[in-house]
Amino acid sequence: MGIKLGINAYGKNAINLSKIIRHADHHEFRQISVSVALEGDFETAHTLGDNSRILPTDTQKNTVYALAKEHFTSTIEDFGLHLANFFFSRNPQISKVKIELVEHGWQRMSFDGTAHTHAFTGGSTEKRRAIITQTAQGAQVSAGLQDLLLLKTTDSAFEKYIKDEYTVLKETTDRILATKCEATWPYTRTDLDFEATYQKIRTTLLRTFAGHKSQSVQQTLYAIGEQILLENETVKGISLIMPNKHYIPFNLEQFGMDNNNEIFIATDEPFGYITGTVVRE
Amino acid sequence: MGIKLGINAYGKNAINLSKIIRHADHHEFRQISVSVALEGDFETAHTLGDNSRILPTDTQKNTVYALAKEHFTSTIEDFGLHLANFFFSRNPQISKVKIELVEHGWQRMSFDGTAHTHAFTGGSTEKRRAIITQTAQGAQVSAGLQDLLLLKTTDSAFEKYIKDEYTVLKETTDRILATKCEATWPYTRTDLDFEATYQKIRTTLLRTFAGHKSQSVQQTLYAIGEQILLENETVKGISLIMPNKHYIPFNLEQFGMDNNNEIFIATDEPFGYITGTVVRE
Amino acid sequence: MGIKLGINAYGKNAINLSKIIRHADHHEFRQISVSVALEGDFETAHTLGDNSRILPTDTQKNTVYALAKEHFTSTIEDFGLHLANFFFSRNPQISKVKIELVEHGWQRMSFDGTAHTHAFTGGSTEKRRAIITQTAQGAQVSAGLQDLLLLKTTDSAFEKYIKDEYTVLKETTDRILATKCEATWPYTRTDLDFEATYQKIRTTLLRTFAGHKSQSVQQTLYAIGEQILLENETVKGISLIMPNKHYIPFNLEQFGMDNNNEIFIATDEPFGYITGTVVRE
Amino acid sequence: MGIKLGINAYGKNAINLSKIIRHADHHEFRQISVSVALEGDFETAHTLGDNSRILPTDTQKNTVYALAKEHFTSTIEDFGLHLANFFFSRNPQISKVKIELVEHGWQRMSFDGTAHTHAFTGGSTEKRRAIITQTAQGAQVSAGLQDLLLLKTTDSAFEKYIKDEYTVLKETTDRILATKCEATWPYTRTDLDFEATYQKIRTTLLRTFAGHKSQSVQQTLYAIGEQILLENETVKGISLIMPNKHYIPFNLEQFGMDNNNEIFIATDEPFGYITGTVVRE
Repeated sequence: MGIKLGINAYGKNAINLSKIIRHADHHEFRQISVSVALEGDFETAHTLGDNSRILPTDTQKNTVYALAKEHFTSTIEDFGLHLANFFFSRNPQISKVKIELVEHGWQRMSFDGTAHTHAFTGGSTEKRRAIITQTAQGAQVSAGLQDLLLLKTTDSAFEKYIKDEYTVLKETTDRILATKCEATWPYTRTDLDFEATYQKIRTTLLRTFAGHKSQSVQQTLYAIGEQILLENETVKGISLIMPNKHYIPFNLEQFGMDNNNEIFIATDEPFGYITGTVVRE
Repeated sequence: MGIKLGINAYGKNAINLSKIIRHADHHEFRQISVSVALEGDFETAHTLGDNSRILPTDTQKNTVYALAKEHFTSTIEDFGLHLANFFFSRNPQISKVKIELVEHGWQRMSFDGTAHTHAFTGGSTEKRRAIITQTAQGAQVSAGLQDLLLLKTTDSAFEKYIKDEYTVLKETTDRILATKCEATWPYTRTDLDFEATYQKIRTTLLRTFAGHKSQSVQQTLYAIGEQILLENETVKGISLIMPNKHYIPFNLEQFGMDNNNEIFIATDEPFGYITGTVVRE
Repeated sequence: MGIKLGINAYGKNAINLSKIIRHADHHEFRQISVSVALEGDFETAHTLGDNSRILPTDTQKNTVYALAKEHFTSTIEDFGLHLANFFFSRNPQISKVKIELVEHGWQRMSFDGTAHTHAFTGGSTEKRRAIITQTAQGAQVSAGLQDLLLLKTTDSAFEKYIKDEYTVLKETTDRILATKCEATWPYTRTDLDFEATYQKIRTTLLRTFAGHKSQSVQQTLYAIGEQILLENETVKGISLIMPNKHYIPFNLEQFGMDNNNEIFIATDEPFGYITGTVVRE
Repeated sequence: MGIKLGINAYGKNAINLSKIIRHADHHEFRQISVSVALEGDFETAHTLGDNSRILPTDTQKNTVYALAKEHFTSTIEDFGLHLANFFFSRNPQISKVKIELVEHGWQRMSFDGTAHTHAFTGGSTEKRRAIITQTAQGAQVSAGLQDLLLLKTTDSAFEKYIKDEYTVLKETTDRILATKCEATWPYTRTDLDFEATYQKIRTTLLRTFAGHKSQSVQQTLYAIGEQILLENETVKGISLIMPNKHYIPFNLEQFGMDNNNEIFIATDEPFGYITGTVVRE
């Protein structure tokens, strides 16, 4: 019985790139992090130390900066498609290119109702994402978001679950529901208006979270995914990661006081980890 | 020559507290982190293991949660004043109470121009701060903010500095200016409208940063401090920490391309560290 | 065309648990983080808000603490097997239990060559891991480690790679090789001496890294995997993640000085991301 | 009443520098982070945008790398002294130079009792520190350490503290004592054997922590400081920061089980924050 190379990949991660796009009367400022991963015929690099099929990760980095000048002009989806095609078409030893892009949101400053032309404050933790994969079968675009903190102060219950000898949690009809949402959705096409589609999906995600009468994180997760699929035929399916960030009522009763769902401790760890995919059948 | 206890303090840090304030037609959601530090006559605790003058940090924590129910109803400055006075007035062994409060901003969701009654997204990294100290001489309130990311794409130069044999940096009349701002300003009084004053100062900080024709981070820092002092007689002085978060033009020339201040690398480390205080004379 | 639930899972993550194991003449101190993930028949929870098949994550957490008293007495692999079997055997709605355990290393203090009975310092960033999955087909144990910083000051080259118009990197026959290694290896059996096997594999990993004349991270990765498989017939295969943590020679030539591979800048981002699996055929 | 510049400083922080020191039969590997802070006559930079007295932080960075080649050959204290003197002696506008150095520990690999010549694993979170300040009055060296995790499983009590209506904590004669220690001690001289003195003090710190019958963190802190001062006449005083990292017994009684100080939850926040200085009188 022998030993051989199995699944493998390599690339440059966390290429931090910013661009000023200069319009006649204002500047846009964009900041993204790009990761490149390549799969292909790299067996001799592993087994023989033969680097003749290795495009160095330093070169990958330089390529991303160089191509950004002409080709990072609109969405990260469009830039990612260009990058994936560039690496794939020039490197016959590569069977799959994966480009992941994360965009940091900067907020344009505004004073007395007037948007400033070139000053910005940092955005929230929420980041927009795109994942492009290219193989001989073509390109696939997934969009998404991550680190989106969502919280609602009511319309969340958790009842009628399994009880056993280790059950301490009390049933509740009214709790805080909070999560740090990550969502990824593959598209059926690569020629979409990625900006408009993204904004529409994000709004549906927020609106469904806000309006849902939740019996569990699972039910809210499914409701979000279902609504996005109903409204967007170009979305193949959606994966959601919605950790349950616990806000626990502080025990004021031990001091002879009531806590009518007013005062909470937020705990970072441990946390409930809820993940699900909603698909078409 | 003997050995003795010098400056010392203790307390509970990072008490994570959230509150739902329930109005007739909507909920407010507040999340703060409170730190308590006590100074006083604790020598025998250190030298003899005598805990009879030690208010445990666990009790400090419980007190913060219990008092939040009735007394955390408006600004962190007001809640901090109540906490400081509570600990100081009940503990004769304490000579100084310091309460630090940091508030995390949550953004109310809004759909089609209508604010939602109870759903929120996480805010930016920016956090509002208050520091209250109480001694026998009375209470002192400082307000501030931290982790406020500021960036402008032009109106920043850096020229005519010292050159020596280790100088590599090129003079520039047009660079990105970016910082993660921390500001702290003590007030002359404890009976202010802390909300209105804070918002006015924060707006001046942003507006001055945005409008300043900067010759250096130092000059922008001073301009911000000076303007805040000019507009607010209740502000004694202001300390600003404005690290220079470098956005360095990527060297596209090595590939035969121009980089007309378009494509940048953002680096986390090392960073310039600029700090200054603007005071009244 | 309808919409339905796809792949999903839930559980409690990051359950931080410590245990003092009291021997006659000394104490052991163990600190682990446990994550539980359950898959199964949870469709109605998502679609109907029916929680009757949901074992709350809070109960999962309590169960881990309660079972630790009697069953966390040796390796994390053994404790994980007990936990997986416990959840699986009591919950017919569950088709798969996954338990991930990470152990933090504490180092016993030693003075004048004598091990202290009950005092410890924190260990390195390196953490030992175990992943146990249980289904109707039985249990599967994988062991591993993460966040193991490895560095060698020589015996690492990188040459004869692809050059193109974006190539800047210079070929080198002598560079620093550094990585933060993550490794995971599934075992063929569940009744191993997990402690001895782990230690043997870890030593092989270090020894191969140290002794290898490296032509690339990929080649070193493969050499490590191959050697571990050659020496351990109970190891099915091994996945290695070895990001290339770059130590770049600082350009002293610009100051008229030589840099004979002496002075380096360590950069966190971007980084090369090298991952590979070595398997039996 | 006018407005003017108050206390201010600037410099380059977090200069990440590594060095290979090549001996005949083995390599040393050192990794440090250096921060430079300058005070002086910088008023016109702030008020007028006049940079003629500003040594750019980029130049400071370059200088640190350049000087490391010849002058970073032994301890960080010695390298820091050289850096401080270099900046101070060449810049008449500077009244105070502060150099902070943090060293990351790498552990030489060893196989079968033989130290490897050039391979290392990452060390613990513990880092050694030095702070050098230079003014017209001369240089001052402080040494120290940070992020040193210390834990003992017994010989720690906490009793007879103040009780009030918010007291929940139970008195204990046997608890886990854990902290992340930071210590800083100024020396009386600048011509010490910094290596030997540091190692002696560190050992005393560990030994005192391990052997002390603790009635409180405060008492242990004082005992450590006192012992270090007693043994080292070149130490002026010592500042210790010893947050109380809580390990809380998990409530197994609610499941009908005993928890004889066996099973604990470690919590990150909130934490007790204990700080004190031990000085000579």
